[in-house]
Amino acid sequence: MHPHTILMNANDNVAIVANDGGLPMGAVLSNGVVLRDKVPQGHKVALVNIGANAPVLRYGVAIGYALRDIPAGAWVHERLLQLPGARSLDDLPQCTATVPAPAPLLGYTFEGYKNPDGSVGTRNILGITTTVQCVAGVVEFAVEKIKRELLPDYPRVDDVIGLEHSYGCGVAIDAPGAEIPIRTLRNISMNPNFGGELMVVSLGCEKLPPGKLMPAGSIPLAQLQGPDGALDVVCLQDEAHEGFMSMIDHIVQSARPHLARLNARQRETVPASELAVGVQCGGSDAFSGVTANPAVGFCTDLLVRAGATVMFSETTEVRDGIAQLTARASTPQVAQAMIREMQWYDAYLGRGKVDRSANTTPGNKQGGLSNIVEKAMGSIVKSGTLPITGVLSPGEKLQQKGLIYAATPASDFICGTLQLAAGMNLHVFTTGRGTPYGLAEVPVIKVATRTALAKRWHDLMDINAGTIADGHQSIEDVGWELFHVLLDVASGRKKTWAEHWKLKNALVLFNPAPVT
Amino acid sequence: MHPHTILMNANDNVAIVANDGGLPMGAVLSNGVVLRDKVPQGHKVALVNIGANAPVLRYGVAIGYALRDIPAGAWVHERLLQLPGARSLDDLPQCTATVPAPAPLLGYTFEGYKNPDGSVGTRNILGITTTVQCVAGVVEFAVEKIKRELLPDYPRVDDVIGLEHSYGCGVAIDAPGAEIPIRTLRNISMNPNFGGELMVVSLGCEKLPPGKLMPAGSIPLAQLQGPDGALDVVCLQDEAHEGFMSMIDHIVQSARPHLARLNARQRETVPASELAVGVQCGGSDAFSGVTANPAVGFCTDLLVRAGATVMFSETTEVRDGIAQLTARASTPQVAQAMIREMQWYDAYLGRGKVDRSANTTPGNKQGGLSNIVEKAMGSIVKSGTLPITGVLSPGEKLQQKGLIYAATPASDFICGTLQLAAGMNLHVFTTGRGTPYGLAEVPVIKVATRTALAKRWHDLMDINAGTIADGHQSIEDVGWELFHVLLDVASGRKKTWAEHWKLKNALVLFNPAPVT
Repeated sequence: MHPHTILMNANDNVAIVANDGGLPMGAVLSNGVVLRDKVPQGHKVALVNIGANAPVLRYGVAIGYALRDIPAGAWVHERLLQLPGARSLDDLPQCTATVPAPAPLLGYTFEGYKNPDGSVGTRNILGITTTVQCVAGVVEFAVEKIKRELLPDYPRVDDVIGLEHSYGCGVAIDAPGAEIPIRTLRNISMNPNFGGELMVVSLGCEKLPPGKLMPAGSIPLAQLQGPDGALDVVCLQDEAHEGFMSMIDHIVQSARPHLARLNARQRETVPASELAVGVQCGGSDAFSGVTANPAVGFCTDLLVRAGATVMFSETTEVRDGIAQLTARASTPQVAQAMIREMQWYDAYLGRGKVDRSANTTPGNKQGGLSNIVEKAMGSIVKSGTLPITGVLSPGEKLQQKGLIYAATPASDFICGTLQLAAGMNLHVFTTGRGTPYGLAEVPVIKVATRTALAKRWHDLMDINAGTIADGHQSIEDVGWELFHVLLDVASGRKKTWAEHWKLKNALVLFNPAPVT
Repeated sequence: MHPHTILMNANDNVAIVANDGGLPMGAVLSNGVVLRDKVPQGHKVALVNIGANAPVLRYGVAIGYALRDIPAGAWVHERLLQLPGARSLDDLPQCTATVPAPAPLLGYTFEGYKNPDGSVGTRNILGITTTVQCVAGVVEFAVEKIKRELLPDYPRVDDVIGLEHSYGCGVAIDAPGAEIPIRTLRNISMNPNFGGELMVVSLGCEKLPPGKLMPAGSIPLAQLQGPDGALDVVCLQDEAHEGFMSMIDHIVQSARPHLARLNARQRETVPASELAVGVQCGGSDAFSGVTANPAVGFCTDLLVRAGATVMFSETTEVRDGIAQLTARASTPQVAQAMIREMQWYDAYLGRGKVDRSANTTPGNKQGGLSNIVEKAMGSIVKSGTLPITGVLSPGEKLQQKGLIYAATPASDFICGTLQLAAGMNLHVFTTGRGTPYGLAEVPVIKVATRTALAKRWHDLMDINAGTIADGHQSIEDVGWELFHVLLDVASGRKKTWAEHWKLKNALVLFNPAPVT
């Protein structure tokens, strides 16, 4: 076996072991260092002697301080590292990074569905909004009936889904923070993949009735398709309903005109700038920041150069990289908005008596990520290198194109749900440990960080970025491959594996307020 | 139309209008008072002149203080009432109520499934526990395959369900309060309706791996049915899995021995004392506390006299009745445990900058419930009249029979989920506004508070308690009817409407800790 280690920055004093199965004690690295321990794949090895309290450097950044002397060739695991304190938010660099103006990337297109509000869908789905969990059983019954009895008549409609969630009642609806789940749900219903067709099922007595979910003026007029231009709502408690089947029939009949309009649409050639891509990582390992995330970052740059929108997220995973990001802000307002989101989340976690270090999982650590600093450094490379031009608070809707920091928790499902609300029409998800993540609303393109995972999960992973660690492809190669796959998936020419198996995770709303 | 009002207590200065459609201005009540306003059904009318700042009395309790002079015959709505402050928890009566020792109720039985741990199931279901939302899509696919291909061979198994939830990763797993969702999930997997068959699907890198969800010693040995007496776990990230179908096949094959053991079981005659009933109300109106909840309370007394377990819950709806309940505590320890739960919840709501008044819904108010005090008085009557003999914190498992206060939020789904964790094998749910609530895990018997609702929702409501307001049945009549329906449903002789339509709401875990 030829020992293969990966160094991220010339100043680093650790490298990670790339070989499948790790390296045995006694293996000799290319710089002559002899391993003093067996080191698992993805884990760090000390390249030089690191004295107690000295910084351990990866990505050119102190990911921790040695708790004792660490000799060259030793396995540098999380138990040898003191977590650095969180970076103060008071004295951050703002707009100091010198980023050369990117060359526009012209000529790329995809086949999408144009919407009345100017957005473009990548799929053609009837999404039925629910105001409250109470109606979930009825909506599920109705959706099955619609799919069975109506959908065959509307072959150009891809799917019918009930937007089920656990919110809407039994919650402190006027508490600070309650605006987040409410606007999330409102904005999800306007996701580009629902084609501007707005249909709501309500119970009637919930805390979040349709008028509070979608108050007058919050919805474009073109989407008010109910009788007399009102919101199209089926309310189960309406006196008109004589029993269960009457509710079901009402929902099914209400779906018909929406399906007819959706079915009349055709894909049209639109510029790549109409993509709104949400990028996320989950089940990360030490390769995430070496292979998949840098490839996604390269693709992010391509997309932004093509005029598209890319959202990166996961507040606890950017917190330790905030100085790099505020430096890349396009304006002081953008930098300050990022700082505001960090402050809000610091306070949110503090109220729960935890901090950003609560992010890392046992699987991250098994995968070689010692702590949240190392994880964050690997996570933020998904954002590429270009200026950050906008910031969204959780649940807000995109108002501009470009590279956007969409503040969300790092929870895969909550992040995905909030990016749906922002208006993403494609989702890129990198994973090192492996997750079968999928969404019903938007195609999810999954990128594996390691070849071993890509091979083992050959029918779940859409792209293998492990070839970068293997030396078979460059970051640029995989970044371009992803870019082309995005255009193919967006156009409906290619299905993702999650779509193939119909794998879908739940919508999970971020509700920082109490339940009652 | 003959005006019909209902007085709850001889000292009350308001009564509620029982007539369908309410009463018009000018209607003359039996005491000669002439209505000065149109009063909707379920709403309060002043029986005498009530001066500004004077207490407005219903259930013999000040549900509020008049914000201005209210003349006899006026509609007493929420905008005329000042909400009383929350009852102090410092000087509550403890064990002071004189409750005559109830006569045992002997001879009632049902046909149930005896479990190894001594509990008794009312249905025979394979419940597949999931450690994390990540696996939900895979488990859903596998469950469909099991139901399609295996279940026909096991005709005595009622259902196969994946216990899907939004917890397990992306959460502060060691924060104060995180023990609640973790034990909830653990205890749900041991619900009596799953027959002691424990089967877990895990991802592998999640924060809540099987060993943390079910640490050694937390599970009865008889339920460790994996290889070598370990927990039976399918881990998707296991290196043994070559792709998606390999995961699916592993789950399907793992289900087979569980199904075989479940299928070998037979219903046996057991005493009614083996019932563990969770009572709850949702979509309440002013009749809830007049018809359905008192009938449930009468049935609660019957059940407790028969030696069974009844749990009542919904902390924000008992908070204002706490003095009545601590007085009914069987021991000071029970009273103190109730007070501890109230204090915990007061603090929880306080951290979110709200209080118990955040409970009431727009629908409650439209239904005549002016505020949380009035709602609470109507809610706690579900607990009947007997001594309260035990208290459970959220997510804890029943350890004793009798009348138990199982502390939960009032959210229908969260309360139901926590009562499932406690070990309920039957669920009674009262509603005034109407909700199609159902659970996949346990039969839900729904009780309508009004005849109009019971008629309109004839195929969703299992029992009509509106006959009490109509004068056609007494509270005792409906209480006995419910008691017999419970025995029939428990025995499988009768299906509930929610079962008939397969209406199921999501499991919603109570997580007071932050997400990350």
